[in-house]
Amino acid sequence: MARGRFLVLEGIDGCGKSTHARDVAAHHDALFTFEPGDSTLGAQLRSWLLNASEPMVPVTEALLMLSDRSHHAATVVEPVLAAGRSVVSDRYFGSTLAYQGYGRGLDLGQLRTATELALGGLWPDLILLLDVPVELANERRARDHGDRFESADHDFHERVRAGYLAMAKADPAMWCVIDASGTRDEVRAAIDRACAERALWQ
Amino acid sequence: MARGRFLVLEGIDGCGKSTHARDVAAHHDALFTFEPGDSTLGAQLRSWLLNASEPMVPVTEALLMLSDRSHHAATVVEPVLAAGRSVVSDRYFGSTLAYQGYGRGLDLGQLRTATELALGGLWPDLILLLDVPVELANERRARDHGDRFESADHDFHERVRAGYLAMAKADPAMWCVIDASGTRDEVRAAIDRACAERALWQ
Repeated sequence: MARGRFLVLEGIDGCGKSTHARDVAAHHDALFTFEPGDSTLGAQLRSWLLNASEPMVPVTEALLMLSDRSHHAATVVEPVLAAGRSVVSDRYFGSTLAYQGYGRGLDLGQLRTATELALGGLWPDLILLLDVPVELANERRARDHGDRFESADHDFHERVRAGYLAMAKADPAMWCVIDASGTRDEVRAAIDRACAERALWQ
Repeated sequence: MARGRFLVLEGIDGCGKSTHARDVAAHHDALFTFEPGDSTLGAQLRSWLLNASEPMVPVTEALLMLSDRSHHAATVVEPVLAAGRSVVSDRYFGSTLAYQGYGRGLDLGQLRTATELALGGLWPDLILLLDVPVELANERRARDHGDRFESADHDFHERVRAGYLAMAKADPAMWCVIDASGTRDEVRAAIDRACAERALWQ
C-alpha cells in the first residue's frame, strides 16, 4: 500500500492556514491535525504552555514545542501515513524555527538540529507558506477574534514573517509561498495550483 | 564578586550521588539541587513524565528532560552562581546523553547539539561520575528501596554506565571518574581528593 502524502500549512497568526488546512484535508479525505496539542499528551502540553506557573525562557518554550512535535510526529502523523491516508497539518517544524528562532533569536543551527532530532526523519512532502503582510493578518485577527497584536508584537511578527520567507527561499523543493492576501476562494485556488504543480495528490 | 562554582554528580541509580551531592553541598554552603524537577515548572514536568496519559517515545522523553534542564539552568543555577554562591547538582546534561542517548539509542550528535541549546552555555566546572557496577547499584536499590531493576533493565543500565564512562574518557578536563563501590566515607574522601586536585573550591 502506498504511503499517504504529508502536507503542512505554515504562516503567521491570521494568515488563514487553519481554515485552509481543514478545507484541503476534507477535500482529499486526509486527516486534519495541528500543532501544538493534537494528542492527549499534546493537550496537556498546550495547557501547560498557556498556564505555566513560572515565566519561561524562549529555549524552554522551544524545547516544549519540540517535545510536542516529536510525540505528534511519532504517534499521530506517522501511523496515518503508514496506513495509506494523507495528513494535512496546521503548523509543523517551520513554526518553531520561525517563532523561537527568527522571532525570539535562538541559535538557528542548534534549533535546526534539535528539530531534526524531534522529527525522526518525518519530513513533509510539501509546505505551503500562506504569506500575508503583518498588518493584514492583524486586521483579520481584529475582525475574527476581536484582538490585535500589541505594538511590541508587531516587530516580532515581522521577524517571524521574514523568517518564514527566508526558509522558503532556502529550500524551494520543500516550501512553496502562497500569496494569502486575497479572498478565501483566491487563496484556495492558489493552494490547489501549487499542489497540482508538485503532483502532491497523484 | 566572584561567581560560584558549579559541581555536578552523575551516575546510574544506586551509585550514591544524591547522598554525596547533599553532603558536599552542605559542607561548602553550596545550593543543593537536582534534575529533573527542582523548580515549580520542573515539578510539573516530573509529575507529567511519571503520569503521562500516553506512552512516550524516547525522543519525546529526552526533549522534555531538556525542557526541564533549560529552565533549571536559566532560573535556578545561573542566578545562584552569578550571586557568588556555589551549586552542587544531582544530575545535569550527562544524564540525558547517558540515558536517552547511550541507553535508548537516540542519535548522540543531535542530542549533544540539543543539549547545548538547552544549556545556553552554562557548563559545569566539574562533573564527578560516581561509577559502580550495575549489580552493586542493584543491591543498594534493593536494600534501600526494596526494588530491583527488571532483568531487561539490567542491559539498559549497562549501556548507561558504559556511556557515562565513554563521556568521562572523551572529556577528562570536565569529567572525573570516582570509584563509588566503597563505603560512604571512602567515596566521600575520593570526592574531596578529586575536588582538591582540580582546585574546585579555591
